[in-house]
Amino acid sequence: MKAFFNPRSVVLIGVSRETGVGAYNNLEMMLRYGYKGTIYLVHPKVPEILGHRAYARVADLPEVPELAVISVGRDRVLPVFKECAETGIRRVVVISQGFSDADEAGAALQEQLTAMAREHGVRVLGPNTMGILNAFTSFSTGFVDIARDPSPPPLTMVAQSGVFQVGYESFTHRVGKAVDVGNGCDIDFVDVLEYLEDDPQTRIIFIHMEGLKRGRELLNVAARVARVKPIIILKTGRSEAGAEAALSHTGSLAGEDAVIDGAFRSAGLIRVRNMIELKAVCQAFLSFHGIGGPRVGVVTATGACGIMTADACEDHGLELAPFPEAIRAGLENSRIAWHRLRNPVDIWPLGMVTGSFVGVLKGAVRGLLADERVDAVLCIAPAMASPMHRDLDMVAAAREIQADNHRRKPLALWLYGGDQATQAAALENEAGVGCFDSIDEAIMGLSALWRHERYKMEPRGGQDRFSPLTPPASRPALLPPRPVILGDEARSLLEAYGIPMVPARLTEGVEAAVSFARTEGYPVVLKIISDAWIHKSDQGGIRLHVGSEEGLRRAYHELGEHFRAVTPSAVLDGILVQKQASGLELLAGVKQDPQLGPVIVAGMGGIYTEVLRDVARCIAPVSPEDAGSMLRSLQCWPILSGIRGQKGVDLAALENLLVSLSRLAMDYPEIQEMDLNPVLASPEGCWCVDSRLVVWTGA
Amino acid sequence: MKAFFNPRSVVLIGVSRETGVGAYNNLEMMLRYGYKGTIYLVHPKVPEILGHRAYARVADLPEVPELAVISVGRDRVLPVFKECAETGIRRVVVISQGFSDADEAGAALQEQLTAMAREHGVRVLGPNTMGILNAFTSFSTGFVDIARDPSPPPLTMVAQSGVFQVGYESFTHRVGKAVDVGNGCDIDFVDVLEYLEDDPQTRIIFIHMEGLKRGRELLNVAARVARVKPIIILKTGRSEAGAEAALSHTGSLAGEDAVIDGAFRSAGLIRVRNMIELKAVCQAFLSFHGIGGPRVGVVTATGACGIMTADACEDHGLELAPFPEAIRAGLENSRIAWHRLRNPVDIWPLGMVTGSFVGVLKGAVRGLLADERVDAVLCIAPAMASPMHRDLDMVAAAREIQADNHRRKPLALWLYGGDQATQAAALENEAGVGCFDSIDEAIMGLSALWRHERYKMEPRGGQDRFSPLTPPASRPALLPPRPVILGDEARSLLEAYGIPMVPARLTEGVEAAVSFARTEGYPVVLKIISDAWIHKSDQGGIRLHVGSEEGLRRAYHELGEHFRAVTPSAVLDGILVQKQASGLELLAGVKQDPQLGPVIVAGMGGIYTEVLRDVARCIAPVSPEDAGSMLRSLQCWPILSGIRGQKGVDLAALENLLVSLSRLAMDYPEIQEMDLNPVLASPEGCWCVDSRLVVWTGA
Repeated sequence: MKAFFNPRSVVLIGVSRETGVGAYNNLEMMLRYGYKGTIYLVHPKVPEILGHRAYARVADLPEVPELAVISVGRDRVLPVFKECAETGIRRVVVISQGFSDADEAGAALQEQLTAMAREHGVRVLGPNTMGILNAFTSFSTGFVDIARDPSPPPLTMVAQSGVFQVGYESFTHRVGKAVDVGNGCDIDFVDVLEYLEDDPQTRIIFIHMEGLKRGRELLNVAARVARVKPIIILKTGRSEAGAEAALSHTGSLAGEDAVIDGAFRSAGLIRVRNMIELKAVCQAFLSFHGIGGPRVGVVTATGACGIMTADACEDHGLELAPFPEAIRAGLENSRIAWHRLRNPVDIWPLGMVTGSFVGVLKGAVRGLLADERVDAVLCIAPAMASPMHRDLDMVAAAREIQADNHRRKPLALWLYGGDQATQAAALENEAGVGCFDSIDEAIMGLSALWRHERYKMEPRGGQDRFSPLTPPASRPALLPPRPVILGDEARSLLEAYGIPMVPARLTEGVEAAVSFARTEGYPVVLKIISDAWIHKSDQGGIRLHVGSEEGLRRAYHELGEHFRAVTPSAVLDGILVQKQASGLELLAGVKQDPQLGPVIVAGMGGIYTEVLRDVARCIAPVSPEDAGSMLRSLQCWPILSGIRGQKGVDLAALENLLVSLSRLAMDYPEIQEMDLNPVLASPEGCWCVDSRLVVWTGA
Repeated sequence: MKAFFNPRSVVLIGVSRETGVGAYNNLEMMLRYGYKGTIYLVHPKVPEILGHRAYARVADLPEVPELAVISVGRDRVLPVFKECAETGIRRVVVISQGFSDADEAGAALQEQLTAMAREHGVRVLGPNTMGILNAFTSFSTGFVDIARDPSPPPLTMVAQSGVFQVGYESFTHRVGKAVDVGNGCDIDFVDVLEYLEDDPQTRIIFIHMEGLKRGRELLNVAARVARVKPIIILKTGRSEAGAEAALSHTGSLAGEDAVIDGAFRSAGLIRVRNMIELKAVCQAFLSFHGIGGPRVGVVTATGACGIMTADACEDHGLELAPFPEAIRAGLENSRIAWHRLRNPVDIWPLGMVTGSFVGVLKGAVRGLLADERVDAVLCIAPAMASPMHRDLDMVAAAREIQADNHRRKPLALWLYGGDQATQAAALENEAGVGCFDSIDEAIMGLSALWRHERYKMEPRGGQDRFSPLTPPASRPALLPPRPVILGDEARSLLEAYGIPMVPARLTEGVEAAVSFARTEGYPVVLKIISDAWIHKSDQGGIRLHVGSEEGLRRAYHELGEHFRAVTPSAVLDGILVQKQASGLELLAGVKQDPQLGPVIVAGMGGIYTEVLRDVARCIAPVSPEDAGSMLRSLQCWPILSGIRGQKGVDLAALENLLVSLSRLAMDYPEIQEMDLNPVLASPEGCWCVDSRLVVWTGA
């Protein structure tokens, strides 16, 4: 990847002869951005553009350039690419659109491009990309004139669109390096993350993603990198309409967003929902060194904003720090003895009586920063445009405060009023100070810092959990060779993996049923088993709550009679006798995610499944700790663990069930879907009552 | 109120002698803001300040001013106020802090102030207020130098803090008039809304509220005004920490936020959660005339942002409009036949091949605006600072588009890149065009317009539903005179209001129980009734599923024996025999809100109540339509209405129950809390099984 970001020489193929306003000439933009390496052009008709010599063919170049940038019409991309490859070029950026982002013909072209690249050992970025932006080396491949940051920040963006380079001010605020992976026919997020892991110029990573590919590999490398460098991710196409639009834009296929969301969280990625949160979070990481905890001290010129900050903290998982009693004496003023000091610290009345608003502010902020139970300070103050308020110089105040902020705790500011933008701009490069556009953005930003710190503190064990799935060396041959497997058909498979099933036996006579019931105990359930009776319940083929041997004999007889009366010509396989279990109705299951492999699900069962959607998901393999987290994340967790003196269910048994299910799913990747519903959970254990599997049996 | 906003003469009491930078002199600020009326000063020591003569006492003034503005220390407020009142002044703004916003002494002072005002027929704004800002008449009472908007917008802010005036640019973007109700000792939100209802300079109202007072009156007037003028409300103190901070700031007591939230929605108020949404929504109402529906057409220079827009629409309740086929031919280009046209319309490839990005953009936007299935257009385009991109002049493009936008559909813009602020500022006063800071803010703004339109379209019947509660003329004397009323004790009261109870009879012998069961049918439940057996269930005092006369006789006997064995000396009131009902476990109830009166609640019952918190709330009186909305808003609604072929429950019976509960609650305002839990709902009806009432029986 390194040569993509910093090539010594580059050839541009498909440069327009037009230059100037509205021409979008990528040679011109490369020159304007300040690239200092060697530039070659290939053009079939003209001898030079903007003073750079053009060659008719790639083979005519005096040396093999480190990088080629192709921006010809899609139909000419393959021949040009072949020329590059045959000349010995090993890195190519394909700017051109019209591949998997467009129609089927484009998708086919892209496949040919990928195959050709593999064949020649060429790495390709694109197609459908703006390519590279590197403010450190002044290198850019795009066709838009972007202002180079003279002191490049350590933020690298990895996007699936050029807009993040073009309008970086509106997205990440600043940018040091950027790569647009476009359709990602070869180089993708995994490659880039592997490069950024050791890149000393990258301290913060932003990913814009439309579609997840090589999901497990990506999560694996991300989980490792996120230990050291925060990875902020904007995964779009969350909604149905958005997913459809994504398919059209880069040909990206969406998995289920809830699965992806959970996976990102496990891998330590900091997911932002929208560009408001994106900008706030980038600003926080750009401004601050880190945060030691979730406790925010607030100094505000207005009580109203203190309340809003309290709301925002609760919205974003932070807390108000306790008020440091040590600073009380220094702030109190006898002329307003009624003024209550607490956190948020409302300094307005103190400013009015002391005559030095900024003096009080500085004292309060310093006091909070010095307290060990305060992890960050948010300071809310006016930035008035009027010359009458020159006393309210927050720029000077913030600088003075920072001079003593030796523990480098974040000092977030929200300034309101007409001079806000000017004062914020003046503080732009003040290390450790972050000026945000609203209270909520400040709190979102601090919250993201804290999410990152918490991930870093997690035990490191989970790091390799997303490694690619390998087919099992051996496995019990217990999966019936049918696409849909129902009920008791999966019993031996499930039992082989230690998944507890409600005891049952298929019987061909009443004595066997009686003997079963004597062993397992009453009550029992009886069910007609016959291919002709799919909807047993509706047809009267089930008897519940059979409580005694007498009742069992009667019910067994009646069911047989009923079967023969309703379907005289059908074959009765037998009558299933099953222990009548009781407990909380849960469900457990497996779902194949197209990018992430088997996902284990658990949640409320019965009629509540579809309605309440109280379901936890975790990518396999699921460890006992993962299973515990899944259960704790359910809305119905208090019921599972026991509320108001009621006994909870056997949590260890439930965790075991999920772990076993995960092993089973890893061993049988052909299982597309598996529902155990209901799973009955009680203080004594949990039992699977019914199952349904959908299996991939070949195309 | 009018004279508060536009007094011909005003006296300032408590003006400082200091002026200039850092002095916060409200006379100086009034002059700078441009007030043209007569200003008098009262000062005990100096003869004049800033060229305005000061009088020693209010009584010395040559005329009775229309308004007095008091900003002395809290201990001097009452004497000064008295002087004003006795001189005949009828409107007073009390700027001073330290009243109910501070300590108990302050709260007492505020009560005296209110009493004094009532006694003298004086209207008071404050205390703890910045007072009034009126850009139309250049009048301001505050002590901060605020830039007057030369063409005042029709937006009036009613806040409980001066910060919204001081920093209006950061909150509502612009401001025409503002009033800070402060602690609201006399003039409150109700008074101001009544004034604004007919104020021709007010087309949009913003309310910042910390505490709700006179809740039902406020909702009533708001519900009426919101039919005509959008009311945007930022109710802070949503969180626990926020509510605590609010108590400290203006002495506001918070009700339950979920109740307030529902009430605001019923009254047509557009609640915003934070200042990001506030600014977006204000900007939408300031920019646009209205919206005809929820369907958004999107023209974007980048596919990535089209996806983000789709996500944002789903987040905020809007839809992507269908692509207008009529405009397809005009946009298609044979050189990129692979380009897919849909909504969002990605114009980048078209711009590149036609060589006129802005031309394509204008065509697409106009096409969308002309289509009747498109209600608003969001246009996403670059605003590049570089001179190389002078062709991307979105200011000119927007103006040209607006010239033809005869149906005045909203044209929202999101511009990205370094020139964003400049181009947005240039479009500031372009009618019907709104430039937003992000895609999400644009969509939030349009969504708020649509919320307002939908409220206007609701049947007008609900308008007076929040009128103040009047004590009932007469009511059945059926409420037992105890603070806590349990179980069967409330039966006659509930039955009098038509609330269906599970049939039950308290019996003193087995024959009465047998006779009850013969009439009502088996199975039945038996319960020991004795003051000594509060926790019947734990003590074994309940028998469920008694299915036959033989079983009943046996269980009845056993319960009696059990009672005597466990508590030999206790008195047995009898054994309650109750029909064993079955159905979905729901709950219904009443809760008194301190500001809004009785609130009717309904939701899932049993073990799920506390865990899932699936509860709907509605302020009494509850109409059948309200009851229907409550049920439909529940997460468990699909179960109630019937899913997957399962029969739903008797919805009419449930609605009746809620309406009856509401009548009961209105008649017995002393009921503080009432829980009917469980209410069993089945296709045949619904029955209340158990009840618990907490009654206010006097202080």
